[in-house]
Amino acid sequence: MTSSTLAPGLADAARLTPAEARSRFRAGLVTPTAGWSRGYAQANLIAVPREYAFDMLLFAQRNPKPCPVLGVLDAGEVAGPLLAGGDVRTDLPLYTVYADGEKVTDTPDVREHWRDDLVAFLVGCSFTFETALQDAGIRIAHIAQGTNVPMYRTTRRCASAGALSGPLVVSMRPIPAGQVADAVRITSRYPAVHGAPVHVGDPGALGIRDLDAPDFGDPVAIGPGELPVFWACGVTPQAAVMESRPPLAIGHAPGHMLVTDVKDAAYQVP
Amino acid sequence: MTSSTLAPGLADAARLTPAEARSRFRAGLVTPTAGWSRGYAQANLIAVPREYAFDMLLFAQRNPKPCPVLGVLDAGEVAGPLLAGGDVRTDLPLYTVYADGEKVTDTPDVREHWRDDLVAFLVGCSFTFETALQDAGIRIAHIAQGTNVPMYRTTRRCASAGALSGPLVVSMRPIPAGQVADAVRITSRYPAVHGAPVHVGDPGALGIRDLDAPDFGDPVAIGPGELPVFWACGVTPQAAVMESRPPLAIGHAPGHMLVTDVKDAAYQVP
Repeated sequence: MTSSTLAPGLADAARLTPAEARSRFRAGLVTPTAGWSRGYAQANLIAVPREYAFDMLLFAQRNPKPCPVLGVLDAGEVAGPLLAGGDVRTDLPLYTVYADGEKVTDTPDVREHWRDDLVAFLVGCSFTFETALQDAGIRIAHIAQGTNVPMYRTTRRCASAGALSGPLVVSMRPIPAGQVADAVRITSRYPAVHGAPVHVGDPGALGIRDLDAPDFGDPVAIGPGELPVFWACGVTPQAAVMESRPPLAIGHAPGHMLVTDVKDAAYQVP
Repeated sequence: MTSSTLAPGLADAARLTPAEARSRFRAGLVTPTAGWSRGYAQANLIAVPREYAFDMLLFAQRNPKPCPVLGVLDAGEVAGPLLAGGDVRTDLPLYTVYADGEKVTDTPDVREHWRDDLVAFLVGCSFTFETALQDAGIRIAHIAQGTNVPMYRTTRRCASAGALSGPLVVSMRPIPAGQVADAVRITSRYPAVHGAPVHVGDPGALGIRDLDAPDFGDPVAIGPGELPVFWACGVTPQAAVMESRPPLAIGHAPGHMLVTDVKDAAYQVP
């Protein structure tokens, strides 16, 4: 099958079960996953060799806003409760492979790059709370456009951990001024998937020079009366990999997430 | 100085700054720390060799209720933001040293046992929310008695992580039936220091046979109209050490905590 025959329309993608979505990606479909399997949480992936696993978990512990850990697959494991019967090496639509911090390839199947000593971290993703935002009448620009969410490196530094250091990466959604408070209130109820925004408004304060040139994903238009709102992003561990240069690391390609079997609501707090 | 000349009365202990409290312990005072430095968070300690550090951090990540990580001191570090200018090897009143999971000694100074490859985990402690309970008019029996809080191994298993597995350990406070709801409501606002109780009432359901014979700490009387209320306890990592037998581990002696520089309120959520 080619990507085009596998690709559902947006409404159909929203209705797929997580297992169905993963089977499409396993079969070769490459697409950003925002809007897929509505009501189910999505996750970032970062896998590093066992000798870097403590530093990565500590990096996450020290930077819980960008790196909320939803699950860890021990060295040698490729499935777990977040992806029952799945395979973390094939079930995401697209991966990025790094050697010594440099991108080697983007590929939809990383079995040939995987090693038995890789520990895979599954990290919360802000796509998880987009359903709640939509339910409150907030339009998600990148879903409406059918593009990937824009993501930016910032000049804000994460707390380092052992061999790992790097900048905070953020995702951005334009929000009408009158809905910013709702967006904050709603997303703050999802601390395990980045929670409340880290910044509202002026991108320059985060060191972002040009919203139209995201470091990852696609630009979106900011309409009149809308503010750019920035959430911590689970690409942050990959930025740490790029800076800290472990010999091998495998991440999801930004925006191309693991669709998990866990409902969004499981990550909601009162 | 002897312990008796260092020991303040309860009211005085409550008024000491954390640095003052730690200096008393560094000078040799041995006492449980409930009620000390009122308004400041207290922490459990578990230090393991670097090769066990990932498993311990993953154990904590998978068991956040008993093992909420407040901070990690990298191998070679003995101070950090939780104990400014302190020394984690001397600043707790009493430690337990384990070799191959067996207790070697209880001692107020572990410098002779410490190794440069030990990674120290500081884990939230339920003493932290006792001030909030007292402020709501809830009497804390072990503070009133001047004894250590009673702690029990349960038959409930923690999620294992690599080489580490073990039972859940709980602390117990008797609470009048009419104040149980308040105790739940108040402590649920402190998820980083064990949060809401794991169990109210029947100790048998947790596999606890005799409340008068705690596995750690001292028994307290349960008055008429009071229920035993059980909170997850930061001694849980030590129970995992006893079961899983790493070559070396150093913990606080149960109830003899690190008094940190962080205010209780810092761990409170809305």
